[in-house]
Amino acid sequence: MNPILRKAAYAGTVHRFCMQIAVIGHAQAAPDEREAAYAAGQKIAENGAVLVCGGLGGVMEAASRGAHEAGGITVGILPGTEGGNPYIGITIRTGLGHARNVLVVLSADAVIAIGGSHGTLSEIAIALKTGRPVYGINTWDIEGVIPCSSPEDAVMRAVQGAGKSRTT
Amino acid sequence: MNPILRKAAYAGTVHRFCMQIAVIGHAQAAPDEREAAYAAGQKIAENGAVLVCGGLGGVMEAASRGAHEAGGITVGILPGTEGGNPYIGITIRTGLGHARNVLVVLSADAVIAIGGSHGTLSEIAIALKTGRPVYGINTWDIEGVIPCSSPEDAVMRAVQGAGKSRTT
Amino acid sequence: MNPILRKAAYAGTVHRFCMQIAVIGHAQAAPDEREAAYAAGQKIAENGAVLVCGGLGGVMEAASRGAHEAGGITVGILPGTEGGNPYIGITIRTGLGHARNVLVVLSADAVIAIGGSHGTLSEIAIALKTGRPVYGINTWDIEGVIPCSSPEDAVMRAVQGAGKSRTT
Amino acid sequence: MNPILRKAAYAGTVHRFCMQIAVIGHAQAAPDEREAAYAAGQKIAENGAVLVCGGLGGVMEAASRGAHEAGGITVGILPGTEGGNPYIGITIRTGLGHARNVLVVLSADAVIAIGGSHGTLSEIAIALKTGRPVYGINTWDIEGVIPCSSPEDAVMRAVQGAGKSRTT
Repeated sequence: MNPILRKAAYAGTVHRFCMQIAVIGHAQAAPDEREAAYAAGQKIAENGAVLVCGGLGGVMEAASRGAHEAGGITVGILPGTEGGNPYIGITIRTGLGHARNVLVVLSADAVIAIGGSHGTLSEIAIALKTGRPVYGINTWDIEGVIPCSSPEDAVMRAVQGAGKSRTT
Repeated sequence: MNPILRKAAYAGTVHRFCMQIAVIGHAQAAPDEREAAYAAGQKIAENGAVLVCGGLGGVMEAASRGAHEAGGITVGILPGTEGGNPYIGITIRTGLGHARNVLVVLSADAVIAIGGSHGTLSEIAIALKTGRPVYGINTWDIEGVIPCSSPEDAVMRAVQGAGKSRTT
Repeated sequence: MNPILRKAAYAGTVHRFCMQIAVIGHAQAAPDEREAAYAAGQKIAENGAVLVCGGLGGVMEAASRGAHEAGGITVGILPGTEGGNPYIGITIRTGLGHARNVLVVLSADAVIAIGGSHGTLSEIAIALKTGRPVYGINTWDIEGVIPCSSPEDAVMRAVQGAGKSRTT
Repeated sequence: MNPILRKAAYAGTVHRFCMQIAVIGHAQAAPDEREAAYAAGQKIAENGAVLVCGGLGGVMEAASRGAHEAGGITVGILPGTEGGNPYIGITIRTGLGHARNVLVVLSADAVIAIGGSHGTLSEIAIALKTGRPVYGINTWDIEGVIPCSSPEDAVMRAVQGAGKSRTT
C-alpha cells in the first residue's frame, strides 16, 4: 500500500464526509482569473475539501494546481474521454460534451465562479436551480450569486455554505 | 490541512498517474458476489489504484467497503443526485439515470465484472467497444471478457492490463 | 400506410431540411407566457418548422399545443422516461435529468425563450455558447439574446436566423 | 403551411399515440444487414410507426432510407452535434458520445437489432433492463432477445410487442 492510502486508512472514518467544492470558469482565462483560481484551489485543499472542476485548462487548471500543490484531492469531470490537466488526481471521463457541465455542478456542495463566459453561466444557472450556493469573483451578475471580495473570502463562505446545504 | 491531505502533498507527483479500476455488478448481489467484490476492492486499494464504481449497493457497496477498509480512495458515479453507499469517498452525482453506466466504464483503465445482469452487460459492452480490458468473475460469457479464477487474480491482471492500456 | 405518412412520402425530398426551432421556458408559466408560447408554436408550425421543446408543462405544453393544433410536428425531449404533455408527437425519453436541457438546445437551429427561470437560463447559455441564435420574450436580459416584441416577431426572426445559422 | 403539416393537422388526434420503433446495428454493416435494415425501416413506416435510430451510417442509414422512402417519419439520435444520414427527418443532436445509445433505446417502444457489435450489445442490454422487447436478426444471442426469421417478421412482432409494452 502506498503512503497516501495507508494514511487515508486511519483517517477513513471521516473522509466520506469531505466537502466537494467546484471552481468554475473559462478554459482561456486572464492572468488575474488564473491567480484567483489558484488561490481558491489552495484554500479549498487547506480546508480539507475536495476540489471538483471541469478538468481542462485556464481557471480549471489553475484551481487544480492550487489544490494539488497544497496537498489536496482534485477531481476533473471531463467533457471528452482523454486526460485532463496535469493536476487532476481523479479523472472522470464522460464523453458527454456540454452536458458534463451539469455533472460538475451536481457533484459540488458549493460552487465558486471566477470570471467565465457562457459555459460558466450555464453552470451557475444549474447550481441555482438545484439549490447549490454560488460564490462569485468578477463573474456573471445574476441574482442569487453571492459576490466575494477575494478567493479566500469565497472559499471561507463556500465551506460554510456547503456545510449548511448538507444539513438541509 | 488534515493528515490525509498533508500526506498526499508529499506523494503528489505520483498521484495523478494512479490507475482507476472499476468494479461492476448487481446492486442486489448474492453473498458470494459481495465477498468477491469486497476482496477485489481490497486488492485494488492495496495496489495503490483508485476504485471506481456505480456508487450504489450490492457489488458496488462491497467493493467500496473493501477498498475503503484497506485505506483506498473510492469513487462512486451515481445515477441520481443523492448520496451513495457509506464507503464512497468521492461522490459524482450525475442525475443521468442509465446513461451513467457509460461514465463508470470510460473513467476506468480496466474493468472487473462480478456476476451482474443487464446493467452490467451494458457496461461490459461499452468497455469492450472502447478498448478497456474486462476481467470477469462468474459474469456474462461474452467474447473479449477475460475469465478469472478469483478476485485476486482479476485485480492482478487488471493492474497489468490497465498499465498496458495506458501506454497505447 | 396512414395519410400523414403517405403525404410525407411525396414531400420526402424536402423534409430532412426542415428547420427545428426550440421554445424554452418554465413548466410553471404565467398565463401571458403560455399565451405567447401557444402563438409561437402555432407560427413555427405555419412556417413549416418542427417545434422542439422539453416536453413538459407550462411554456413547453402551450408551445406544443400551438404547433400541434396548427398541424405541425412537435418533439419533446424529456428529462425522465415517462410520457410528456399531450401535444408531443415525437417523444425522446432521455432519463438524463437536468442534462437534457443541453439536448433541447443542440437539437434546435434557433431558440425562442419565453420568460423562464434558472433552467431556461442554462439553456440560453448553452445556445449562445454553441452559436445558436436566441430570441427572447420577457426573458433573461443576457447579452446576445435578441429581444422580440411578440411571438410572431420572434418566430419570424428565428426562421431567418435558423436559415443563416445553417448556411455557416 | 406545407402539405405534410396540413395533412398532419387532420390526423392530429392520433399522431401522439404513434409507436416509436428503434432499429439498431453497426455503422459498418454487411450488405445483407443493410438489406434487412432497409426492409425493416420500410415495414415500420408502412405500419404507421416512427423509426428511431442512432442517425449514422450502415444499418442506421439503411433503416432510415427504408422508412423515408416508404413515406415514414425518421428520428436520428446522434452521438455528436453534426448532421446525420440523408434520410433523417427529425435530428436529435446530443453530443453525448456513447451515452446516446441509452436514449435510442429509451425512446423506443420496441427494438429491432440487426447484426451489430458491442455498441449494439450495449443497447440490447439497456432495452432488456428497461423492459423493452428486443427482436433480433442475426444478432447477439442473449437470453431475452426474440430471434426473428426476417425483417417483416421482426416488425410484425415489434408492432405487437410495442403495443403490449404500452398497455403495461
